[in-house]
Amino acid sequence: MADILASLRSLMASHSPPLDALLVPSEDYHQSEYVSARDKRREFVSGFTGSAGLALITKNDARLWTDGRYFLQAMQQLSDQWKLMRIGEDASVDAWLSDNLQREATIGIDPWCISVDTAQRWEQAFAKRKQKLFQTTTNLVDEVWKNRPPAEINPVVDHPLEFSGRSVTEKLKDLRVKLANEKARGIIITALDEVAWLYNIRGSDVSYSPVVHAFAIVTLNSAFLYVEKRKVSSKVNSSLQENGIEVREYGAVSSDVVMLASNQLDKATGVISSQNGVCDNDLIWVDPASCCHALFSKLDANMVLLQQSPLAPAKALKNPVELEGLKNAHIRDGAAVVQFLVWLDKQMQEIYGASGYFLEGEVDRKKTPETTKLTEVTVSDKLEGFRASKEHFRGLSFPTISSVGPNAAIIHYSPQAETCAELDPNSIYLFDSGGQYLDGTTDITRTVHFGKPSAHEKACYTSVLKGHIALGNARFPNGTNGYALDILARIPLWRYGLDYRHGTGHGIGSYLNVHEGPHQISFRPHARNVPLQVSMTVTDEPGYYEDGNFGIRLENVLVIKEVDTEFNFGDKGYLSFDHITWAPYQIKLIDFSLLAPEEIYWLNTYHSKCREILAPYMDKNQMEWLKKATETVSA
Amino acid sequence: MADILASLRSLMASHSPPLDALLVPSEDYHQSEYVSARDKRREFVSGFTGSAGLALITKNDARLWTDGRYFLQAMQQLSDQWKLMRIGEDASVDAWLSDNLQREATIGIDPWCISVDTAQRWEQAFAKRKQKLFQTTTNLVDEVWKNRPPAEINPVVDHPLEFSGRSVTEKLKDLRVKLANEKARGIIITALDEVAWLYNIRGSDVSYSPVVHAFAIVTLNSAFLYVEKRKVSSKVNSSLQENGIEVREYGAVSSDVVMLASNQLDKATGVISSQNGVCDNDLIWVDPASCCHALFSKLDANMVLLQQSPLAPAKALKNPVELEGLKNAHIRDGAAVVQFLVWLDKQMQEIYGASGYFLEGEVDRKKTPETTKLTEVTVSDKLEGFRASKEHFRGLSFPTISSVGPNAAIIHYSPQAETCAELDPNSIYLFDSGGQYLDGTTDITRTVHFGKPSAHEKACYTSVLKGHIALGNARFPNGTNGYALDILARIPLWRYGLDYRHGTGHGIGSYLNVHEGPHQISFRPHARNVPLQVSMTVTDEPGYYEDGNFGIRLENVLVIKEVDTEFNFGDKGYLSFDHITWAPYQIKLIDFSLLAPEEIYWLNTYHSKCREILAPYMDKNQMEWLKKATETVSA
Repeated sequence: MADILASLRSLMASHSPPLDALLVPSEDYHQSEYVSARDKRREFVSGFTGSAGLALITKNDARLWTDGRYFLQAMQQLSDQWKLMRIGEDASVDAWLSDNLQREATIGIDPWCISVDTAQRWEQAFAKRKQKLFQTTTNLVDEVWKNRPPAEINPVVDHPLEFSGRSVTEKLKDLRVKLANEKARGIIITALDEVAWLYNIRGSDVSYSPVVHAFAIVTLNSAFLYVEKRKVSSKVNSSLQENGIEVREYGAVSSDVVMLASNQLDKATGVISSQNGVCDNDLIWVDPASCCHALFSKLDANMVLLQQSPLAPAKALKNPVELEGLKNAHIRDGAAVVQFLVWLDKQMQEIYGASGYFLEGEVDRKKTPETTKLTEVTVSDKLEGFRASKEHFRGLSFPTISSVGPNAAIIHYSPQAETCAELDPNSIYLFDSGGQYLDGTTDITRTVHFGKPSAHEKACYTSVLKGHIALGNARFPNGTNGYALDILARIPLWRYGLDYRHGTGHGIGSYLNVHEGPHQISFRPHARNVPLQVSMTVTDEPGYYEDGNFGIRLENVLVIKEVDTEFNFGDKGYLSFDHITWAPYQIKLIDFSLLAPEEIYWLNTYHSKCREILAPYMDKNQMEWLKKATETVSA
Repeated sequence: MADILASLRSLMASHSPPLDALLVPSEDYHQSEYVSARDKRREFVSGFTGSAGLALITKNDARLWTDGRYFLQAMQQLSDQWKLMRIGEDASVDAWLSDNLQREATIGIDPWCISVDTAQRWEQAFAKRKQKLFQTTTNLVDEVWKNRPPAEINPVVDHPLEFSGRSVTEKLKDLRVKLANEKARGIIITALDEVAWLYNIRGSDVSYSPVVHAFAIVTLNSAFLYVEKRKVSSKVNSSLQENGIEVREYGAVSSDVVMLASNQLDKATGVISSQNGVCDNDLIWVDPASCCHALFSKLDANMVLLQQSPLAPAKALKNPVELEGLKNAHIRDGAAVVQFLVWLDKQMQEIYGASGYFLEGEVDRKKTPETTKLTEVTVSDKLEGFRASKEHFRGLSFPTISSVGPNAAIIHYSPQAETCAELDPNSIYLFDSGGQYLDGTTDITRTVHFGKPSAHEKACYTSVLKGHIALGNARFPNGTNGYALDILARIPLWRYGLDYRHGTGHGIGSYLNVHEGPHQISFRPHARNVPLQVSMTVTDEPGYYEDGNFGIRLENVLVIKEVDTEFNFGDKGYLSFDHITWAPYQIKLIDFSLLAPEEIYWLNTYHSKCREILAPYMDKNQMEWLKKATETVSA
């Protein structure tokens, strides 16, 4: 690690101009949340493996900024050479550089790894002391990375109409209407899930997200896909061509953006940009949150329409085929979760002498036989196995959070085989996991206990459940945003002075990214910008985390639908949610004295649907367990 | 009316430069919500008496913009010469002028009657077509207003420490700390309630608000009050002087702002602005929402700190004496409301043969004797009488909304003696009213029925009550704003597709304005800016309005306090509300099948407190009625 920093500093010194600091973000050229091994530059230089973070290297200093989810993990993984900067507690990276680096310092960045938004914000902050954000022409980390994993050459595959529900022709037509409305003659698409969604293609270049490393440019007359051509079979190429898409090499995007800027991209392909050669539409649409600064800087800023990509809301509004697929995928996924619980319940009783999922008994932890122990990793592998046995399964949708006791209080805990904890019949077990299926992406969290939960754990579980039910049961007029709804999931927790430091819900893709915008349910200001609309998906996942003790989270995926209310004040139309996730809540963890009659009614109704919907997937033993887990209860 | 418009147009034509349009806002020189008779310029030119509106006169056109509360009333009151412009439906005034007036048109405005915020917004909008907002040196409406009411010369009175709870010396000290923190050497205070609060004075220049027509300027060393000197007795003058306040004529504020701008105001009074004659604090603090453009434009824009007045939050955080006073005032006010209900119940039975407050009986409306009829105005006068019999009463805090049946659906209905409706034993009666008491300002709404309410009316009343209870019972961490809480009062209504088109809560003054900021509970973006804090007051007033049929609103005043929750996640501290309004809800209007056990428990607890707290004010007959109205109920 010392070598890496020394090599980087040497490159920084010999760089022209010399760099006083180098910023290494977590993101790839597409501002992805999950990146391929080859793009884990920030992890390579710092040793910190979390999904979010920013590394800074100066002549004498090395610092890593990350958020509250990762403070503990970063402390463990960073060497003495690095200092952890806690986002929300310590100075922000721009404030720190402005205060600690000399005036007129030069701060290097690979402009492919930074969004337009972030670059502009930093440039402004650095300008105060005449410091300069310098865009390097090569990535300095790549130069010192000796054993950098090679680019994976994974095939691009068609995502057929039976799953996508809308043809590329139709999607391109919709997009071009939006371009024309905004007086744009082209758009640069850099977000991997937007490229995949628009062209109905999928791939396996990135873990957990079935996307292809690719850019796209769409003009009023042409459409281009920039991808390693070796990944595209002649069959897929033909199908793309049929849809009017020309495949070009990944690296050609730079020069084509220049051509687009000078309005020569359409001409170059022999298509005339408008009938009389004069074009009213002069703008190039760029999403400032996802487009890298490298491509943006090739454009004349005056001709850029800096605005959220029109594909973000289009992708969020699921079509009927996608909705049907998502519902089916969630049924198979729920069956896998129940099968896992049945298996785990049996193991916990046999190996640890636990009283099990249904009974509350004390267990002497010391009886554990060392030979057959279950760990956070081995049981999560078993869960993956149940998912893998289901139709259309293609992999996990994110690293499974499988966490025992205190580990469950670490919101984005990711167990490692060597260091992870053993299951414990006297502790809460939280698992948050999901699958990628050809017909949909899933995401579910359940929290369980196989011994005797404390009264406090029950009260907390019940408060989380009340918030989860209150949000899921809400009805609200068209135009309501996720900032307004967020409080519904928190009010039952706030009653006792409990809360959680994360948002309450995110959109979910159709065999695409597990986290998808543009809407969200959250206390964060961004959630105010996008109203929730019919056919959007959103998770409902309140929680409570007690440091060093336990964590609780319950998560279902919801679909937004119109609801036929008795009245329709203001003629706005009212909306509500359909749960599409199916797996029981653990009755043993509920303190029924805290539930209102209507909450108990909802629970019984949900459980009876679980039983009915999952029955076809259960063997006799599993069905018996499921029947017991979903028995009607009363206060 | 025709004469007025003709005279104004003639003045506009002979003006130098000629005016193509004249804007006449509702506000006075202090941007007040309620203005004196003399300042009702917009009402004078248009004939529309509502509290909010903006008149526009061009050569050939006259238009009045107002909001949804007043569409019906404006339609009735405007003559044929005027066209009603519905805010939210028709073009905004700036958009309309920009689209309909010629390029480079001159639009006149009295700069004393418009805030800095509004002036700047309009100037920007008009600039698109090189139109110009011209600040007239005289008010053209005043010139044509022949019988304009004279300025009222009402005495300025001290508001003693036993009610204000904090001395002027302490308030000035706090203010100067805030000035110094913001590098300001002075502040111009134009909001009437801020002047009254800071200097602990009250008056009667404006209906409903016990304020004085006055400006104030406070510098680091001096304090000035600009008011008609005739209003200030030598005793009050001495008391002001003792607090270091110099009284100057109302009109002198203009020249003193110029002196302030050139840093000569302190010197002029013989006080040196800082020890070595050099002053680090260079800014003049101006609140852009309340300060008129006339005063702002005398300053160099570069030396202005355009920011919310520090007095707004200071005034909103009630001190212990103010809180005690508010609680006591609300008890006396609640007693008046109950005495009114007892009286009205008897009248309704005797005059109309109604079954009364407690029983649900059908009534043949035709039996009404014409001679002794009750109207919206006569009963509201009676209510005022009960208030007037209470200690410290000084008048109403706003025009009483006293409304029968369909009139109750008009949110800001104000009955007129000549045209108002008669009470009706078969209709809902809604009254929203409040008093000004030396120790506090009150505001309460109750909705009642003296015959047989329909099942629909009950369901609606109960939904409103559920929202009212849910908000009042909320617990929330420090930092929560009123935008987040607003949804709690709506969720029970949204379940049935019901809603209301107004905010849910506003602050209330201490013997000051009945509507007070800076916080509010509302879906409007502004409510996001200010977190709710301990010792703020806020109303809890959801409603439901069915056009042409009935209206329901329930309103209590709440005080925000710390709450000792079982846990304290994030060490933020948790807050909750205390109700300080005391008057029963009508059991007859509640559909108990819609209430949860905890809501019934809350209702019984609140009612038993009402009984206990109001008992000292009740005679035997009233106490019997109150006992019956607050009997313990079960589902």
